[in-house]
Amino acid sequence: MKVGLIGLGKMGSNLAMQLLDKGHQVVGYDRDASNAGKLFGHAGLAVDSLEQLVSALTPPRLVWVMVPPGDPVNATVTRLTELLSEGDTIVDGGNSHYKDSMRLAEFCCGKGVRFLDAGTSGGMEGARHGACVMVGGDRQAFEAIEPLLADVCVPHGYLYAGASGSGHFLKMVHNGIEYGMMQAIAEGFEVLHKSSFDLNLAEVAGLWSHGSVIRGWLMELTARALDKDAKLDQIQGIMHSSGEGKWTVETALELQASTPVIALSLLMRYRSLETDAFHGKVVAALRNEFGGHEVVKQ
Amino acid sequence: MKVGLIGLGKMGSNLAMQLLDKGHQVVGYDRDASNAGKLFGHAGLAVDSLEQLVSALTPPRLVWVMVPPGDPVNATVTRLTELLSEGDTIVDGGNSHYKDSMRLAEFCCGKGVRFLDAGTSGGMEGARHGACVMVGGDRQAFEAIEPLLADVCVPHGYLYAGASGSGHFLKMVHNGIEYGMMQAIAEGFEVLHKSSFDLNLAEVAGLWSHGSVIRGWLMELTARALDKDAKLDQIQGIMHSSGEGKWTVETALELQASTPVIALSLLMRYRSLETDAFHGKVVAALRNEFGGHEVVKQ
Repeated sequence: MKVGLIGLGKMGSNLAMQLLDKGHQVVGYDRDASNAGKLFGHAGLAVDSLEQLVSALTPPRLVWVMVPPGDPVNATVTRLTELLSEGDTIVDGGNSHYKDSMRLAEFCCGKGVRFLDAGTSGGMEGARHGACVMVGGDRQAFEAIEPLLADVCVPHGYLYAGASGSGHFLKMVHNGIEYGMMQAIAEGFEVLHKSSFDLNLAEVAGLWSHGSVIRGWLMELTARALDKDAKLDQIQGIMHSSGEGKWTVETALELQASTPVIALSLLMRYRSLETDAFHGKVVAALRNEFGGHEVVKQ
Repeated sequence: MKVGLIGLGKMGSNLAMQLLDKGHQVVGYDRDASNAGKLFGHAGLAVDSLEQLVSALTPPRLVWVMVPPGDPVNATVTRLTELLSEGDTIVDGGNSHYKDSMRLAEFCCGKGVRFLDAGTSGGMEGARHGACVMVGGDRQAFEAIEPLLADVCVPHGYLYAGASGSGHFLKMVHNGIEYGMMQAIAEGFEVLHKSSFDLNLAEVAGLWSHGSVIRGWLMELTARALDKDAKLDQIQGIMHSSGEGKWTVETALELQASTPVIALSLLMRYRSLETDAFHGKVVAALRNEFGGHEVVKQ
């Protein structure tokens, strides 16, 4: 198929290369011309604007948007609806909030343009060699792009999830689970690291990647990271987050769904952003007030 | 190799069948004669006592113990040291506490018998078709049984972890991680289950088993369970535990290792054992006391 790809960052560029490898035609655009240039010198067509991108495609057009959630997606999709024709399809393949996707689907529908929300998992390697994609929106629009999904996903690696928003809803919850799984793995290695046994953590993670109950890609990545840096001495334990864990917890609160471990995993990330938490000062001050326990002065 | 196998329950019987399939000789004993009989009618030799088991092996003997942790392991190993000769090896392949294994290794050493603690992961399917085993204890004793480990484990599926106790220490932490990962997965599906999207949970778990960041055996088992029972209507959400999560948290407390998610996963299991928790009554009573908020009467 011929696909317009907007956003050639870490995920978009890898997806572009996979699409090209698999015989698709890619017309790529990135706000940052250097991103486009480096990728499309050979096999793909790099363009300098959304207008050029739309012109380079033939109806019914397919435009895959791989830009950061929020304003970038909104602005891109809004502008695209002005350029595209009835029957064209926009896929938001990024990490948008599912409520934004529901709203954008309705907005696009009003313009005669089909809109699919596609949550994409598998990281950069997935985008490059075989991803996992969960799609919400119009079923016919999904079926029209299914050959492309079959090519860029691993076998059994895509799903039509249902109504608009369901693709990004699934991706959001997927990431919430990911927060909890990562924190559980991390805490286990915290215990191993502090134990008096002389353990080779990379070997342990490697072992647990083979035949154990907790085997999986996150354990393989743990082994890979520990192989490079046996005790992770080179990095700080600062755990940033990009929104989907927070959205999962917000959604759980809306649904009154009991998700303490996912919530706590998110809060542990926030805790990691501070070297000295205010709540620590409060507890230290209170212990001093009632019991005369020593505090550590600044 | 020729191996004496004590304990032919869910794990032991599967391990026995794998050993036999792979050309090893198995002399099996189980307290419950029916366990032994059904398995060893054909290929293995079933015996009626530890004495017969030891007699049926030739020095240096190898005895693999697959019985519940605590008293059963202690009693079995103690009795074996009275029957075995110097240079024989006992492997505790069960889920013993690592401190028990350290103590038993010292006890066996005093009797001239080698003792290895082997944490075994991979569930019944692993025992049957290829397990993941982490071994602590005397290195030479480990090397002597390495051919057998290579046969019953998946490729790269066994590790010499180090000093006595390290095998079961790793298995304990492995299970602590498992508690957290399972709770994280479960909470994600709680959100999906409560959402207004019409999701097929089995399909979602199946999708996430293919190419996603959170792919792994636990997700595959989630898909399998949901395939059988789409909304798990047939079972109650009562989460039993068999000790290793608790030991992980106890060890974390000893080491002052920060493991809130693993601890909370354990506490959520305890919570699940009660339909009406006393802490719930306390909070309801307090809300009533200060704010006149209604309580739900018995």
